[in-house]
Amino acid sequence: MSLELLILGSNSAAFAHRRHHTAQLFKLQEQHFLIDCGEGTQLLMKRYKVKLSRIDHIFISHLHGDHYFGLIGLLSTMHLFGRKKDLLLVCPPGLKEILQLQLRHSETSLNFRIQYVEFTPGESEIVHETPKYTVTTLPMDHRVPCSGYLFKEKPKKRRINRNKLPEVQLSSLDIVRLKEGEDILNEDESIKYENKLLTLDPNPSFSYAFFSDTRLRPELVDTIKGVDLLYHEATFANDMKDRAVQTFHTTAEQAAQFAKDAEVGKLVLGHFSARYKELDPILNEAKAIFPKAELAIEGTKFVVDGK
Amino acid sequence: MSLELLILGSNSAAFAHRRHHTAQLFKLQEQHFLIDCGEGTQLLMKRYKVKLSRIDHIFISHLHGDHYFGLIGLLSTMHLFGRKKDLLLVCPPGLKEILQLQLRHSETSLNFRIQYVEFTPGESEIVHETPKYTVTTLPMDHRVPCSGYLFKEKPKKRRINRNKLPEVQLSSLDIVRLKEGEDILNEDESIKYENKLLTLDPNPSFSYAFFSDTRLRPELVDTIKGVDLLYHEATFANDMKDRAVQTFHTTAEQAAQFAKDAEVGKLVLGHFSARYKELDPILNEAKAIFPKAELAIEGTKFVVDGK
Repeated sequence: MSLELLILGSNSAAFAHRRHHTAQLFKLQEQHFLIDCGEGTQLLMKRYKVKLSRIDHIFISHLHGDHYFGLIGLLSTMHLFGRKKDLLLVCPPGLKEILQLQLRHSETSLNFRIQYVEFTPGESEIVHETPKYTVTTLPMDHRVPCSGYLFKEKPKKRRINRNKLPEVQLSSLDIVRLKEGEDILNEDESIKYENKLLTLDPNPSFSYAFFSDTRLRPELVDTIKGVDLLYHEATFANDMKDRAVQTFHTTAEQAAQFAKDAEVGKLVLGHFSARYKELDPILNEAKAIFPKAELAIEGTKFVVDGK
Repeated sequence: MSLELLILGSNSAAFAHRRHHTAQLFKLQEQHFLIDCGEGTQLLMKRYKVKLSRIDHIFISHLHGDHYFGLIGLLSTMHLFGRKKDLLLVCPPGLKEILQLQLRHSETSLNFRIQYVEFTPGESEIVHETPKYTVTTLPMDHRVPCSGYLFKEKPKKRRINRNKLPEVQLSSLDIVRLKEGEDILNEDESIKYENKLLTLDPNPSFSYAFFSDTRLRPELVDTIKGVDLLYHEATFANDMKDRAVQTFHTTAEQAAQFAKDAEVGKLVLGHFSARYKELDPILNEAKAIFPKAELAIEGTKFVVDGK
């Protein structure tokens, strides 16, 4: 099991230097999550060979166009390709109204159901949960209601140590109990097999934090402590710190310090201003503080498969 | 003076075979008109080096996404680039509501004014006029309210024959009268200079008809009779004639016969179904009936500069 992040687009505001608007495909527990969907995302998915039918969950951070203008086109194409499966759409209030108005004017009744989950601006809440993972909103500090997302696998069960199996006799129920961390008892409740002798530690639980457009959010250091992967916007380099504050964005230096404080495994920087043709200044500034920083270059896949 | 048509996109419904959704840039009288604006149009404009600032007039045919999903992104980029000039937007009822809702949710107040002109579905009416040209709607037969557009230069003034000027004495007023086709009179109202001796015929007046998604519209043959250039959808080849009727589209054969009946100068075929990887069947079918047919291949510029 692993965590994968494929960058589809990572530029802010205007298209520039062959860089597109925010969109990324995140994979966890064999599920594909599309996070943000700037104009042209479906074209980028074609370029990077992402099948539309794989996507059952879409998360939109906020209603600035560079984060969602490609969504209505993507949904239309899914419809055209005969999608029947439900689609979960986690989004800010307002998006449902926009999409429904557009569908009404094109007299389109989608072949599939969109299950809308509107997040509550300013709050941190679980917006999607399965037995294996949770997705929690991370309230951003931006000009319009905006949320990041924390994807977190739940703790996994202990693993049976197959090398020990020939030495013992176990029922199916014993196996279940061992995976839950329980010892196996005799009828008189004395310990027959100690759990730790027959099991191995669980596989690691992976986690990913997506920080959309925002001023620095030091309040969230504890919330994302130790995530394996952090995507953080770094619209500007630090010489534009004042501009970052004015426009509710973050600098590369700030993002790197945040990653360091939160002790994350790896930092991916994105949402670059069109003013940067070359991104080395952004990367170097971050690496000076947090060496495990990388750039969200389109088409790059970041994989975390062990701790 | 000439008429120019640059094809930006010409595929129907789904992106396919590197073909994009409908968008084209039409130039007449030094004005640039954007006609339809599928998703990614602003990227295609970058590719074909079309400056956004040149465009003061946008015409949208209908509210199917492959004809307008790129508009909100284009307007947002114009705003971002500091546009101040008014923009004329001729469109179906409903588009204003969609755009205003999107702008409201992004808390964006555009730096420029959009002058909305909503066409009346089913009617042919002048939606834009200057002293030099008119734009008239062409009611299409499609599943939702849909309009084509007829761009027509008004008759031009007669041209002064400069070779004759040394032989005569003319006042400024005489020049104006000659251009209007009048003779120059003596005080006793006898003819001093006959108009045709001092002037040449006017330059030709160009015209362009854009037919958006539609079933065949034989009722419009007279309306567009003799236009220099006709863009007509040809979603299917004629073996799909039944499907064309069902989906409110046209075949290449039908479009060619229509062009022939309307005695147009040139026919450009577009809005190709994704089922055609190669477009030769479409072109050959049309050419058999109307030899001056061409395909709306992206990046192609069609120029008409004389009759």
